[in-house]
Amino acid sequence: MTTVHAWAAPEAGAPFEPFEYELGPIGHDDVEIEVEYCGICHSDLSMRDNAWEMTTYPFVGGHEIEGRIVAVGSGVSPDRIGRRVGVGWISRTDPECPICLSGRHNLSPTQEGVIVGRHGGFADRVRAQSTWAYEIPEGIPAGEAGPLFCGGATVWAPFHDHAHPTHRIGVVGIGGLGHMALRFARAWGCHVTAFTTSETKRAEAMAMGAHEVVVSADADALAARESTLDLLVTTQNVTIDWQGHLRMLRPDGWLHIVGAVLDPIPIEAFDLIPTHRRITGTPTSNPSAIHAMVEFAARHGIAPTTEHFPIERINEAFEKMAANRVRYRAVLDLKG
Amino acid sequence: MTTVHAWAAPEAGAPFEPFEYELGPIGHDDVEIEVEYCGICHSDLSMRDNAWEMTTYPFVGGHEIEGRIVAVGSGVSPDRIGRRVGVGWISRTDPECPICLSGRHNLSPTQEGVIVGRHGGFADRVRAQSTWAYEIPEGIPAGEAGPLFCGGATVWAPFHDHAHPTHRIGVVGIGGLGHMALRFARAWGCHVTAFTTSETKRAEAMAMGAHEVVVSADADALAARESTLDLLVTTQNVTIDWQGHLRMLRPDGWLHIVGAVLDPIPIEAFDLIPTHRRITGTPTSNPSAIHAMVEFAARHGIAPTTEHFPIERINEAFEKMAANRVRYRAVLDLKG
Repeated sequence: MTTVHAWAAPEAGAPFEPFEYELGPIGHDDVEIEVEYCGICHSDLSMRDNAWEMTTYPFVGGHEIEGRIVAVGSGVSPDRIGRRVGVGWISRTDPECPICLSGRHNLSPTQEGVIVGRHGGFADRVRAQSTWAYEIPEGIPAGEAGPLFCGGATVWAPFHDHAHPTHRIGVVGIGGLGHMALRFARAWGCHVTAFTTSETKRAEAMAMGAHEVVVSADADALAARESTLDLLVTTQNVTIDWQGHLRMLRPDGWLHIVGAVLDPIPIEAFDLIPTHRRITGTPTSNPSAIHAMVEFAARHGIAPTTEHFPIERINEAFEKMAANRVRYRAVLDLKG
Repeated sequence: MTTVHAWAAPEAGAPFEPFEYELGPIGHDDVEIEVEYCGICHSDLSMRDNAWEMTTYPFVGGHEIEGRIVAVGSGVSPDRIGRRVGVGWISRTDPECPICLSGRHNLSPTQEGVIVGRHGGFADRVRAQSTWAYEIPEGIPAGEAGPLFCGGATVWAPFHDHAHPTHRIGVVGIGGLGHMALRFARAWGCHVTAFTTSETKRAEAMAMGAHEVVVSADADALAARESTLDLLVTTQNVTIDWQGHLRMLRPDGWLHIVGAVLDPIPIEAFDLIPTHRRITGTPTSNPSAIHAMVEFAARHGIAPTTEHFPIERINEAFEKMAANRVRYRAVLDLKG
């Protein structure tokens, strides 16, 4: 038995407060992680507030976990103990399901979320199936790895699936996800355009890898870029001028949605048929892609830009994120 | 100079009537075709009525052409004279454009339509760039080839791009396009489901290759098929229950739109993100795919089901098509 010292929201919308719970015997394919850092994703806020109507309380959020393995189940090599690992949105999948067997675990209906019906990483300990605890290369600095495993893995999928170094790439929304997408795109060899609602982010977006920055609300700027992009990754969670954005794609181009926008997206068939433009979305990446991501991030020195808070200031960090004032990802320090 | 004996609509919505025009000197990369048969596509009706506001009058429709080459330009091998060929929607592209150079001529903005700003195949003669006049293998019966080059090539693109023999395929709309899609899907080795608004087409759809027939308006039948299809090809030009249809797709599945539906298609991001479902559309196929199509069609004995009319009864054929009573493609006979 392990007593976990966590921070939990007792009910929808309530602040986090200290909370203890017991972990039972470790599962045969689990690892137990001493959490050192945990990023805050916007979905932690949605879950805290039960916005998706699937939260259980008390709610311990946190799914951008960085820490060290301190125990393993009977089916996991003891060599993993002591390794620095990261865990993102998913904590477990059924490796026998046909979708997982094809390497597409991120699309499997068998997946268990770290913070869905169980307790997450705003705590000194967390467990996950060994598959979902990724070793972190030395090249990624301590305290900066966690956000790669949710926000990073989310924007990584479009690159892994569709991007080619000859491409012209657009990233819509320069926040927790988008700022990492700019870095991936630039390191990938692409021409990179950042689309943001905030003129104030221009200089930072350029420093992160954008060759140019466009204010998304500028319909003329979108029209001037008609049929110029190969891939447009949308990370924002609000409605945009979808047609104006879609029309920036070249023939065969991809509109790849990773931001959880709730309003329907109106698509004109004639914006697809003559051009074979393609629209899709993905959740986090699959395991083999995440392994490739951390190696790529280490090789290129890619990490999120973070703002650290001690765990005791978790509620202040959430308020700042909710106000869209974090630049660009909040990370909680679990080891005082 | 060649005098062409054609049938033209003198103004929007007017019936076709005899019309003569002169063809000038043949272009260096053109072939001249003696038209023997010409299918009627729904887009001939849209163009006759100027529904897309790009028709010029007098309007000679016809872009599902079957005939024989009777003359060639200076840059075309005289060996082509006498060959049986088909021509579809496109009559010319600029082979120097980067998109054509990559083999994607069907997506090229340089394309000239057979019936757009020039005269089509409701005539005894028509010309097209040699690239766009495809030789017809012996296995395809005389009088049945024309519709392969527009309707056939249109539904061929999704198969050529996405289909795998292990797939479960859905075809929405069992008309001029959809009935050929059923045949392609069955010959491809797939499990085939036909979605139709018309219960009366059930037996014919089964005979064309469907393993099962579902009435599209039956929401329960769609829900019962959630996450079961790999590819759904929509050929109808009216609004359907898009969400109900999209949700029938498995992870990584494609919704491929070829029917020219005019109302916006509302897409929920959450119907794409967790599953990596993909939405796209295409116009006709590219030239290399069309060559592959005719070989495949000949090998499998695939041809449209047609209803023939002598050219003098062109207006009767149009009325029957407009009333959705043709089973399944009207073809005009040009050689009395």
